[in-house]
Amino acid sequence: MEKTEATLHLLLDAHKLKRTYRTGWVARGISNAESVAEHSFGVTFIALLLMEMIDHPLDKNKVLTIALLHDLPEGITGDIPSPAVAHFPPNAKRDAELAVLKHQLNNLPHADQWRDWWQEFEDRSSPEGRLVRDADKLDMLIQAYTYEQTTSNRWLEEFWPLAEDGPQFEFPAAQAIYESLITLRENTTL
Amino acid sequence: MEKTEATLHLLLDAHKLKRTYRTGWVARGISNAESVAEHSFGVTFIALLLMEMIDHPLDKNKVLTIALLHDLPEGITGDIPSPAVAHFPPNAKRDAELAVLKHQLNNLPHADQWRDWWQEFEDRSSPEGRLVRDADKLDMLIQAYTYEQTTSNRWLEEFWPLAEDGPQFEFPAAQAIYESLITLRENTTL
Amino acid sequence: MEKTEATLHLLLDAHKLKRTYRTGWVARGISNAESVAEHSFGVTFIALLLMEMIDHPLDKNKVLTIALLHDLPEGITGDIPSPAVAHFPPNAKRDAELAVLKHQLNNLPHADQWRDWWQEFEDRSSPEGRLVRDADKLDMLIQAYTYEQTTSNRWLEEFWPLAEDGPQFEFPAAQAIYESLITLRENTTL
Amino acid sequence: MEKTEATLHLLLDAHKLKRTYRTGWVARGISNAESVAEHSFGVTFIALLLMEMIDHPLDKNKVLTIALLHDLPEGITGDIPSPAVAHFPPNAKRDAELAVLKHQLNNLPHADQWRDWWQEFEDRSSPEGRLVRDADKLDMLIQAYTYEQTTSNRWLEEFWPLAEDGPQFEFPAAQAIYESLITLRENTTL
Amino acid sequence: MEKTEATLHLLLDAHKLKRTYRTGWVARGISNAESVAEHSFGVTFIALLLMEMIDHPLDKNKVLTIALLHDLPEGITGDIPSPAVAHFPPNAKRDAELAVLKHQLNNLPHADQWRDWWQEFEDRSSPEGRLVRDADKLDMLIQAYTYEQTTSNRWLEEFWPLAEDGPQFEFPAAQAIYESLITLRENTTL
Amino acid sequence: MEKTEATLHLLLDAHKLKRTYRTGWVARGISNAESVAEHSFGVTFIALLLMEMIDHPLDKNKVLTIALLHDLPEGITGDIPSPAVAHFPPNAKRDAELAVLKHQLNNLPHADQWRDWWQEFEDRSSPEGRLVRDADKLDMLIQAYTYEQTTSNRWLEEFWPLAEDGPQFEFPAAQAIYESLITLRENTTL
Repeated sequence: MEKTEATLHLLLDAHKLKRTYRTGWVARGISNAESVAEHSFGVTFIALLLMEMIDHPLDKNKVLTIALLHDLPEGITGDIPSPAVAHFPPNAKRDAELAVLKHQLNNLPHADQWRDWWQEFEDRSSPEGRLVRDADKLDMLIQAYTYEQTTSNRWLEEFWPLAEDGPQFEFPAAQAIYESLITLRENTTL
Repeated sequence: MEKTEATLHLLLDAHKLKRTYRTGWVARGISNAESVAEHSFGVTFIALLLMEMIDHPLDKNKVLTIALLHDLPEGITGDIPSPAVAHFPPNAKRDAELAVLKHQLNNLPHADQWRDWWQEFEDRSSPEGRLVRDADKLDMLIQAYTYEQTTSNRWLEEFWPLAEDGPQFEFPAAQAIYESLITLRENTTL
Repeated sequence: MEKTEATLHLLLDAHKLKRTYRTGWVARGISNAESVAEHSFGVTFIALLLMEMIDHPLDKNKVLTIALLHDLPEGITGDIPSPAVAHFPPNAKRDAELAVLKHQLNNLPHADQWRDWWQEFEDRSSPEGRLVRDADKLDMLIQAYTYEQTTSNRWLEEFWPLAEDGPQFEFPAAQAIYESLITLRENTTL
Repeated sequence: MEKTEATLHLLLDAHKLKRTYRTGWVARGISNAESVAEHSFGVTFIALLLMEMIDHPLDKNKVLTIALLHDLPEGITGDIPSPAVAHFPPNAKRDAELAVLKHQLNNLPHADQWRDWWQEFEDRSSPEGRLVRDADKLDMLIQAYTYEQTTSNRWLEEFWPLAEDGPQFEFPAAQAIYESLITLRENTTL
Repeated sequence: MEKTEATLHLLLDAHKLKRTYRTGWVARGISNAESVAEHSFGVTFIALLLMEMIDHPLDKNKVLTIALLHDLPEGITGDIPSPAVAHFPPNAKRDAELAVLKHQLNNLPHADQWRDWWQEFEDRSSPEGRLVRDADKLDMLIQAYTYEQTTSNRWLEEFWPLAEDGPQFEFPAAQAIYESLITLRENTTL
Repeated sequence: MEKTEATLHLLLDAHKLKRTYRTGWVARGISNAESVAEHSFGVTFIALLLMEMIDHPLDKNKVLTIALLHDLPEGITGDIPSPAVAHFPPNAKRDAELAVLKHQLNNLPHADQWRDWWQEFEDRSSPEGRLVRDADKLDMLIQAYTYEQTTSNRWLEEFWPLAEDGPQFEFPAAQAIYESLITLRENTTL
């Protein structure tokens, strides 16, 4: 029964992602901005599709688990804005998130494995971690595209230039989707 | 390249779930109600944890795929309110969603398999489908609990009585989490 | 007294339109989108003005009653998105709405007449029904114009092309207002 | 054509009621509070039903027209909060609204008549004006009831005590609905 | 203790500014528009910086106090829209706000002085009052610029033309910031 | 002119506080939660009143300046949630905020003094810094009280118990207001 309560507690923690809003959008004046839970759904769904497009042998369950976990600590730490990170000691954000994740997964049977997987995402140290990285970036760009279409917010342009500096994605399939999105944007937004 | 565009199109469809709000909450006056994407994240995350608590052999990738897909057609059909369903012909909602899903998955390599899996969820005809059913119900109840705590909305009470009529969940692990939630609710809400 | 309670019940049902949001806008990313009640006010107000511009003899009370009733069932069925309708059996949406309306008007003295009037709106089978059709379309386009002005949302463009394909309105007065709106849009939006 | 443009201008003015929020709710911390357009729909719908319950001979078209017009000037003046009115010269609010209404109806064929009707609402000087008064009050109380149910906001209680001081409504049918609402509130809210 | 309660009451009144939204934005369809409290913060902060740029001897405490007080009555009167003011008797708005302010400051030791200062702001009859006038205008324009950038709302253009008709600001430092903003807008918005 | 642009840049930075929401409320499910700008207004206004109630000689301009500046870095760092702080290295949050503040005030004539004052707030090392501390806490509690009254959110209770553990405020006048608030809460909320 104690284990059940620990699981319920973790579920309530995951629900916090439904009330944690992505600060990159909020700070740019997007009203009713996406939550981390919505982003996490997007990332996991993209990862699911990317796996179908890739020949590379991948542990599918591992990919989807990483995608579901990758922002879990933000229920506690919040989504610390990118411009803030440079003002913290090196690795302070990552260390804080890892500490929170340890606490969140406490008592779960696969806690150690999941923590290792989360670090593979952070460090891009496994194909599965790298795939979720690509999915993470794609979901952000599809969202930026959607906000541009629906709000004409001018402060989203900064998301794109960097992305255009040559190849950014680990997997060619992700790169191809990205290029398809760039074409769509050129035809409909600019 | 055509396949890439089909995938991008499906991703844009999945993003519609971020702008589709769960009508059960909206109709009860919850402002800023959860989106279907947020719910789908919750269901998939719960399914991930439930799998760890169950001895029954399960295809993990299949469970997570069903959870990610289970509400995908709602990006097109919207979240048709429960009280409306009785006024449509038998199976009309299900048939419409299946037709939409076929259209959405069109050209994907695993389209047939994923459609079959979606139907297993609808029909509760496989352990994996039944597990996602349990996760679906748990996410709804955890959300109802959260809204009760944060808004004291009196119209959420109707979610609970039915649930209390004896066992409702397919898997004992889900039932145990549910009972733990009932206890939490009794201690903090009522 | 029982009749009074039936009326109060119907008023509470009509109030649901204040919490039912027009899915055409929501799905296109309009935040804080119009409710069906707001739309119904707009339609009724437009109908009131159109009647003053038309020589055709019309039953004014009938026109305004149709306008107030025309979306009443959506408090129960929700505003089913247009792209969804094609996936339901022919007339399923209309039949569901009619069944809900019957239930809603149950016990009211004019229930039969009002139901007949509602069907005249659906079938465009009376001048009064056709006038509200025109008002319905005008309110939608004025709202689309307003959202274009205030959000620069690019996904609203699809509302206009169809409308430009020659005459769309039943009454010349409605057609004239529409053309005046097109001119205003050309001068201020495009 | 000039007349058409005047009508379009008035329709755009009426649309402003969709973006004018009822300050009585906003000031009490209701998030996502009702617009004046939503309220006007409610008032007109209630007036429609009240007419069916009353033997008194009434000009139905006049009743519905008054209900649709009664808050039209608020698109320009805003919904000036009740506690503010005492700080303005006597009749200043009413005079301002009348001046705005004259300007809004300018050039309409029935402008004079509608202005007279609006004043009958303000002065309660005709049965039709008094009926809309009753509908106005009922819509406010049904909305207060709904907010109490959905938000448990404690600052809405002030709406009720005054209302309980004996008969408040002009027509017994309105009084009966009010009493039915009081009973419902006692059974579900208090 | 009575004095303490009077102060708490005034603080609760000031908190009403957090729930009073600036009608200039709301009426133009800005969703999630700025509150009067947010505007008051902006004005006070701008006044703080302007003081540092000005050689003119100023009573700093007086400047900041005026800035904090200047919209305090709007917690009771609401933010009456500019187009409405012309329809009220001359000075009616100002008189109402002054009456409310007197009531709000009642019993405070500096009530008389603060009321005099508020009138200096209204009448531009002291350097400190004029400085806050400049800050008031600058905050509005910076906010208009931000909304243009983030929503592309076309109805904000009307804020600028008047402002471009030659010098508008009392202090050269405010004028210089305004011109810098105009340049920024020309480079990024138009 | 360069100095003017630096000032405009700082004003645009201060405006970011209007789009930075207080995470303590957001994480507890308050929809439409207060911004840091609204809170900063509240703190500055409370500080203004507290100064009038205190015999202790205080530099009024210093007090108001500290209140306006105290959360300025949050425009860049966001409002890092309290439960997150424990997972960062000691002082990491404070050091990050100080670094951001230095950057924000860069080139301003009083930059050094204002930074020192900000640290006095952080360290409670001057009467003026301590007074703003008290105002900071009072604004939070008045806001918590308001949310309890308007939403009946149960997760706000945690704000109070700590506060009840004996004296918490530096100045007796702040303590008295706090106790007056506790009494009000006991009479109206509990």
